[in-house]
Amino acid sequence: MTTDAGSLPFRRIGVVGLGLIGGSLARALRALTSPPEIAASSLDAAELEAAVAEGIVQRPASPARIAASAELVIYATPPAATRAFLQAHASRWREDALLMDVGSVKRGVVEQARALGLGARFVGAHPMAGGERAGWAAARADLFAGARVWLTPLGPEGEAAMRAAELVWRAVGARPLRIEAEKHDRLVAWTSHLPQITATALAAAIAASGFPADALGPGGRDATRLAASPAALWEEILLANADLLEDPLLAMEGALVKLTEAVRARDGAAIHELFTHAAEWRSR
Amino acid sequence: MTTDAGSLPFRRIGVVGLGLIGGSLARALRALTSPPEIAASSLDAAELEAAVAEGIVQRPASPARIAASAELVIYATPPAATRAFLQAHASRWREDALLMDVGSVKRGVVEQARALGLGARFVGAHPMAGGERAGWAAARADLFAGARVWLTPLGPEGEAAMRAAELVWRAVGARPLRIEAEKHDRLVAWTSHLPQITATALAAAIAASGFPADALGPGGRDATRLAASPAALWEEILLANADLLEDPLLAMEGALVKLTEAVRARDGAAIHELFTHAAEWRSR
Repeated sequence: MTTDAGSLPFRRIGVVGLGLIGGSLARALRALTSPPEIAASSLDAAELEAAVAEGIVQRPASPARIAASAELVIYATPPAATRAFLQAHASRWREDALLMDVGSVKRGVVEQARALGLGARFVGAHPMAGGERAGWAAARADLFAGARVWLTPLGPEGEAAMRAAELVWRAVGARPLRIEAEKHDRLVAWTSHLPQITATALAAAIAASGFPADALGPGGRDATRLAASPAALWEEILLANADLLEDPLLAMEGALVKLTEAVRARDGAAIHELFTHAAEWRSR
Repeated sequence: MTTDAGSLPFRRIGVVGLGLIGGSLARALRALTSPPEIAASSLDAAELEAAVAEGIVQRPASPARIAASAELVIYATPPAATRAFLQAHASRWREDALLMDVGSVKRGVVEQARALGLGARFVGAHPMAGGERAGWAAARADLFAGARVWLTPLGPEGEAAMRAAELVWRAVGARPLRIEAEKHDRLVAWTSHLPQITATALAAAIAASGFPADALGPGGRDATRLAASPAALWEEILLANADLLEDPLLAMEGALVKLTEAVRARDGAAIHELFTHAAEWRSR
């Protein structure tokens, strides 16, 4: 941790949803030298109880009560749930509350926050951390250590909110960087959503062969690791970013067909060139 | 290590090629409590010197001299080089020498060994270890710890050679298992070569977008890790297994197109089903 909580402008933080991201944020905030009080909600009562028993959550509460009392409300829920909560909580937040989501597609939630007049208090965040494991069980205090976190400004009126959000992410060890929502969504379509779709397609293809996953070597395990990601979350993410996925999916199909044709034609020079090009990019 | 070298039936082992696999084998054998003497060759004189200076290699030698003197000759070279060495060394080996290769496609070398009348002394081996990093610099004594190693029997006359090979691999911590060469090549086409091609295609697709590799999150890094693999080696491997790659490549294209169509059609139910199916396979 590069900062302790003494520099955080919040003493009461609310976390709606104790999944991988929300749970890890709660753990990381409580690991600070002077930790804030955490109010949290979870759809899983047993997980919430466990978080209280561990001293991570001081106040188990409903999302509506969290919204009404926290100085910083973090919506760590799937995109559709976050949108529903923003709508439902619009008359509940404290005057001075900062609002943040952590979803991996940003245009929709940023537009909604703007429409709700939250330009001065809402910050869209997307930590590039985690992976295929989900839920409170996978949450850990060091999940964000060194991780890039994208923050999407709503406009100049949100400058103070943005600075406060940056303090929070730096406090848990992350590297926040500002990016416009559309630019963000295009970036993750290529660098996150396309790898996810590819890993899932690869797993589906191998599964169809009848070979079990434990026949994979270390390389095959790496390449298919993302395929274990939760289906419901990814259905939402891909639908939310479907328009910006057109180009990446077209490019992936093209690259696969090119390599397939080279193998079929026993064209060693073409295989070599494609592999060299990809290796240069990946190793740089 | 589950066995010490006292149980190995070889005191003088020759390793032709000190890359990731040959170098790791040499390191692992020298880490045994009563290590054998290692003679080794490398195309890289500086690496060979380093291996001698570290006490891993006792006798730097040419491949021909290694072939003439070692009780176990391990060809840890790319497939084409291994085939050339087997041909060139056919009149050089000791009467009692065991010969082994470590290539990842087995039909060609097994057929050649059979044609050379080596049924009683040649064992084809393929350790499912390593990854995208190559060369002596990446070699490590524990590379084979817990790793599956496929061994391809040439026939009943090779039973003693097979048992000796199994002792060697168990000594370095690996889990040897016998498999027929064609069955092996089909297995790795699906579980190793298809993931490699897919990772390379994915890296090529993202590279074309202009985003650098360091824009990837942890999941994208996993999914593209194999793309850094050495092009020359993979050109050889894919050409050697091109016939058995037809089905896997067709299945991969089909799975990718299916997911692409589901995203394009905003068909949440189809996305959910494909993701669920892949996750079940990967998590089992």
